[in-house]
Amino acid sequence: MDQVSCKILGVDPGTNVMGYSILNTHLNKSEVEVISVIQMKKLEDHYAKLKFIFEKITALVEQYKPDVLAIEAPFYGKNVQSMLKLGRAQGVVIAVCLHAGMQVFEYEPRKIKQSITGNGNAAKEQVAAMLCHMYPLKDKIEYLDATDALAAAVCHHLQNRVTLGGGQKFSDWKSFIANNENRIVKK
Amino acid sequence: MDQVSCKILGVDPGTNVMGYSILNTHLNKSEVEVISVIQMKKLEDHYAKLKFIFEKITALVEQYKPDVLAIEAPFYGKNVQSMLKLGRAQGVVIAVCLHAGMQVFEYEPRKIKQSITGNGNAAKEQVAAMLCHMYPLKDKIEYLDATDALAAAVCHHLQNRVTLGGGQKFSDWKSFIANNENRIVKK
Repeated sequence: MDQVSCKILGVDPGTNVMGYSILNTHLNKSEVEVISVIQMKKLEDHYAKLKFIFEKITALVEQYKPDVLAIEAPFYGKNVQSMLKLGRAQGVVIAVCLHAGMQVFEYEPRKIKQSITGNGNAAKEQVAAMLCHMYPLKDKIEYLDATDALAAAVCHHLQNRVTLGGGQKFSDWKSFIANNENRIVKK
Repeated sequence: MDQVSCKILGVDPGTNVMGYSILNTHLNKSEVEVISVIQMKKLEDHYAKLKFIFEKITALVEQYKPDVLAIEAPFYGKNVQSMLKLGRAQGVVIAVCLHAGMQVFEYEPRKIKQSITGNGNAAKEQVAAMLCHMYPLKDKIEYLDATDALAAAVCHHLQNRVTLGGGQKFSDWKSFIANNENRIVKK
């Protein structure tokens, strides 16, 4: 990873469907290299799923060599049981990436939605719609878990690009818009 | 692993101290090869701990080549936050072992205590005392996390040895005692 470029692996962990995406960033620019899901509904048990996550994330890390993991990590859940299961899936993803020398960043769902749509309570469909506006994703998206994974990567990029871009800050809307054409919805 | 021998890796996962033990079993006999802990109190953050667990468990699996993981797994915790953290640590241990082709068995703390001491509410010290009676462990134990890990392995052994031993069942105390001398506390 040089000073200005970063390959981000975005992951939305789950034990039935796990979304993932590779976002290549350079200064304030970014493009989507991969956006997909790991399907685990057919796997018979929790162990088979954890093993599958381990091996799939290992393969992704070896294939794309990302610098950073941006993972969607809810800190509060419905109940202790589901959080334990989710924690296991998260732990596998995080440990594989750390072992590969990657940096790991966690973002709460609310923070991700806020950074993409401006609304922390936005629906998954709204997040997906904004991402489709920012990147040429048409026909690539079957699952909202995939866009959620990309959203985590984009959130990390948006958090870090000001400093990555040499401390560039936008003091007014005009300069912001000039540098962020792909984030402007034209009606 | 042949029909009658099994090398069991027992783990008591935690994010500050993680106990582990290797128990070699053959029919109804068993001996402790290793009993120790992974110290993580000095590691600066949660990520460093997960990475350390990943690498330490990988090293143990490569060095001792166990057939089975027996892991202490509480299914209910104090709060969602601590269960998420614990789940991550568990997930890393379980996935590394599954990836290595091992079978994984989880046991609730109550079940482990029950199988070692006969009392599901026994204190850790009671479990440790019984294990010291069953195996020559003197001077080897610094932490109760280590005996808890061994307890998980012994629990698995006790659960499975009847079938491992060719369907041998004990119909009365006399024959049980004759085959389990090391489990009898002589006063």
